[in-house]
Amino acid sequence: MNMNTNPARGMRDFLPEDKEIREYVKEIIRDTYKKSGFQEIETPAVENIENLLGSSGGENLKLIYKILKRGEKLDLSSSNLSESDLTDLGLRYDLTLPLCRYYANNRANLPKPFKSIQIGEVYRAERSQKGRYRCFVQCDVDVMAESDTIVEIDLINTVANALVKLSLDEFKVRINDRRVLKGAINFAGFSDEQFENVCMILDKLDKIHKKGVLEELKKAGYEEKKILVLMNLLDDITSENIEDLLKYGVESEAVESLKAIIEGVTEIARGRYKIEFDFSLVRGMGYYTGSIFEIEYGKLGYSVAGGGRYDELIGRFIGEKVPACGFSIGFERIVDILKENKFSPELNKRIAVILDSEKDSRKLSIVEAEKLRDEGYIVSIILKQKKFGKQLTKLVNEGFQKFAVFNENNELELKEFQV
Amino acid sequence: MNMNTNPARGMRDFLPEDKEIREYVKEIIRDTYKKSGFQEIETPAVENIENLLGSSGGENLKLIYKILKRGEKLDLSSSNLSESDLTDLGLRYDLTLPLCRYYANNRANLPKPFKSIQIGEVYRAERSQKGRYRCFVQCDVDVMAESDTIVEIDLINTVANALVKLSLDEFKVRINDRRVLKGAINFAGFSDEQFENVCMILDKLDKIHKKGVLEELKKAGYEEKKILVLMNLLDDITSENIEDLLKYGVESEAVESLKAIIEGVTEIARGRYKIEFDFSLVRGMGYYTGSIFEIEYGKLGYSVAGGGRYDELIGRFIGEKVPACGFSIGFERIVDILKENKFSPELNKRIAVILDSEKDSRKLSIVEAEKLRDEGYIVSIILKQKKFGKQLTKLVNEGFQKFAVFNENNELELKEFQV
Repeated sequence: MNMNTNPARGMRDFLPEDKEIREYVKEIIRDTYKKSGFQEIETPAVENIENLLGSSGGENLKLIYKILKRGEKLDLSSSNLSESDLTDLGLRYDLTLPLCRYYANNRANLPKPFKSIQIGEVYRAERSQKGRYRCFVQCDVDVMAESDTIVEIDLINTVANALVKLSLDEFKVRINDRRVLKGAINFAGFSDEQFENVCMILDKLDKIHKKGVLEELKKAGYEEKKILVLMNLLDDITSENIEDLLKYGVESEAVESLKAIIEGVTEIARGRYKIEFDFSLVRGMGYYTGSIFEIEYGKLGYSVAGGGRYDELIGRFIGEKVPACGFSIGFERIVDILKENKFSPELNKRIAVILDSEKDSRKLSIVEAEKLRDEGYIVSIILKQKKFGKQLTKLVNEGFQKFAVFNENNELELKEFQV
Repeated sequence: MNMNTNPARGMRDFLPEDKEIREYVKEIIRDTYKKSGFQEIETPAVENIENLLGSSGGENLKLIYKILKRGEKLDLSSSNLSESDLTDLGLRYDLTLPLCRYYANNRANLPKPFKSIQIGEVYRAERSQKGRYRCFVQCDVDVMAESDTIVEIDLINTVANALVKLSLDEFKVRINDRRVLKGAINFAGFSDEQFENVCMILDKLDKIHKKGVLEELKKAGYEEKKILVLMNLLDDITSENIEDLLKYGVESEAVESLKAIIEGVTEIARGRYKIEFDFSLVRGMGYYTGSIFEIEYGKLGYSVAGGGRYDELIGRFIGEKVPACGFSIGFERIVDILKENKFSPELNKRIAVILDSEKDSRKLSIVEAEKLRDEGYIVSIILKQKKFGKQLTKLVNEGFQKFAVFNENNELELKEFQV
C-alpha cells in the first residue's frame, strides 16, 4: 500500500509561488520592525505543557497539541490514565506566553526596556474550515519593562508602517482599554460575574450592530437601566470627546492613556490611516490589563492585527510585576489579501542554460552558468529534451525569462523566448 | 509557585545577537540556493505519524516526538494501550521524508525536474549533550525527477558556494557511491547480512584510522582474505585512478557517475575546495541508492553538510520510481563555527532618540524618529532616566552607535557617545 501523500489535517504544503510571497511579506515585516529598534529573538515551538496550560489562554488551551512522554517517563501500564500522565510537552498556541517565559529566563542578558520581535509558527487544533489553519505564522512586536504610553504609540506606528509598506492602506486602528470596560460596565451596575458575558455581547457589535447588541443584552435578562448606560456610552463617546469617559466612572489614568495614544498615533499617521476609540473592542485573551487595540482592514472589516498591554503575565514566572505590551500581525490574513490583490514580488530574471548532453561540454556549461549567476541572474542548468520546442514552452510556463544555448563555436548565447 | 522559566529540555532560547547571526546565515544560504535556480517550498513540521514511522529513517525513528490524539479519537478507557493507540501525528526528524511526501502530493503543479529548497526546524529527542540539540535547523537542496549526474554537480556546487560566501573555505567534499560499497563488499566475499556491519566499521576510519578498521574487522570474526581485499581498496583507489574500482567488482555505471561528478566539481571549484573519492564514506540513512557525499570542514574534520541520491523513497508514496538527490547543510554547525570565529554581520547604525518626558514634545520625538528611520537608521525612542550619564553608558553597551536629544530650540541633535 502506498503511503498517504496529504499533509496532516489542517496543515499546509506551500508551492514555490506561495512561499515566495510568504517570505517576501515576512521580510518586509521583519525589516520594518527592526528599523523601529526592535530586536529579533527566537523561542522553541515546543514548550513545557504546564506553562502552556497555566497561561490564561482562554479557549486556546483546549486546542493545544500535546506531546507524548518518551522513554521511561511514559508508563502505559497503570489504569485510569489521564492526559497529564501521558504528556510533558506541547506546541505553543501563541507567541506571547513563550515570550514571557523567555523574558523571565533571559532578562539578565537583555536591555531594559526590551523591544522584541518574534516571527514564527503557532499551532491550534481548530476545527478545519476555510481560512482557518492549524499551523499559522504570527509576527509579534512587544515591549517589556516600560509602562509609558510611548510604548503603545511605538507598537501601533511600527505595525502600521509594515502594513503601509505592504500596500495595505485602507485600514483603521481601533483602540480601547480593559480599564474602560471594567470601569464603565461596573458603573452601569453590572456585577463582576456578569462582566465577561457583557463583554462577549459588546464584542459582536460589528456583526450584529447596535440593535443586535441591545437585543442580546435584553435577552440575557439584564436590567433596562444598566443596558441604557452602556448603549449611551456606545453612542456618545468618540476619540474627540474621550474625556467624557470620566462621567462613566472610568479612572482618569485610563482616560489619559487613551488620549495620549490617540493623539500620538494621529500625529504620526499623517493621514495614512485612522485611529478611533471603540468601546465595543474587547479582545478575547484573559491576560490583558490596560490598552487593547486592533487593526481593521478594508470594507469587510477584517482584523489583521491585534494586541494590548499585559502587565501581569511575566509576574507568573518571576513573582514580580513587569509591564509589557505587544502587537501581533495576523500573517496569514495579510498573505491572503495580497494574493487576492494578485500581488507578486519582483524577482531576479530566471535563465535556463540548455545542456545538450550529446554535443556540449558539460563542464563548460557549469562554468558559464556560474558566470551568469555572478551577474545576478537565477540560473538553472537543464538537459535538452528531444522535443525542444515543447520544452521551451514548458520553460516559459515555469517562469523562465530567457534561455541560453551553446553555438557552433561553443560559446553560450542568451536568447529570448519567441512567443 | 512561580512557573518554570527554562525552555523545554534540549530546546533553546536565542538572544538577539544569536538570532542576528542565525538569520544572516539563513539568508546567505537561501540566496545562494536561489541563484542556482532552486525554488523554496515549505512543509509543515507536523506530519502523520505513519509516514514518519514508515520512512527508513534508521535510528532516528526512535527519536520522534509523537503527538497525542485529540477529542473523540483519544480513548484512554481501554487497557493495554500502546503508543500507536494514542498518537496520530509526529514532529519531523528530517526534511527529506516530508519533501518526498510533498513531491508526491504536489507533483502535478511542479516543474520537472524540480529543484527545491527547504530551510526549517527538525526535531529529535536525542540524549542531551553539548552541541546536540533536540530542535535544529536544516538547509536542504534537492532535485527530483532527474537522474543525470549534472544534478550531483549542481548540488555540490550550490552548497559549496554557500559555504564559500560564509567564508568557510578550508573544506573538502568526500564522495562515494552506495553501489561502490555494495559491489566491493560483495566482491570481497562478504554476505548481504554482513554488509551493514562492515559499513559501520568502515565509517569509523576518520576516528580509528586504518589500523583500527583492520582490527575491528578481524575482531568481528571476518575472514582475513575478505578483509584484505577491502583494505587494499582503501589504500589503492583515489580520485585519480577511480576506474580501477572496476577491478573490485563495481558496476561501470557507478564508476562513470563518480568520475563525471569528480571531474565536474573539480572544474567548477577552481581550487577553492577539493573533492575526493573516499571508500570509507558510508552515511547512515537507509534510503540512499547511489552517490553519497559529505563536506568536511577544517582540521578537525567536522562534517558540515551531507547528502546523496535516494531514487526509491518517493516511490513509497506513488508506487512509481522517481529519481531524487539532495544535499543538506548542518546549519547549527555552521553557526557554531562562525561564532567561534567571532563573526558578526554588518548592521545598520542604531540611534537612541532620548525623550525627556518633562520637557520635550512627545509627538515631535516620534515624528523625528520616523525621519531618521527613513534615512536608514535603526531608531529606538527611549525615555530619559534620572541618571543620564549611567543611561548613556548602558546604551553603548546595548549596541547603540549614536543618540539624539532635543536642543533649546526643540530641534533634534544627533550626538556621538563620549568614551
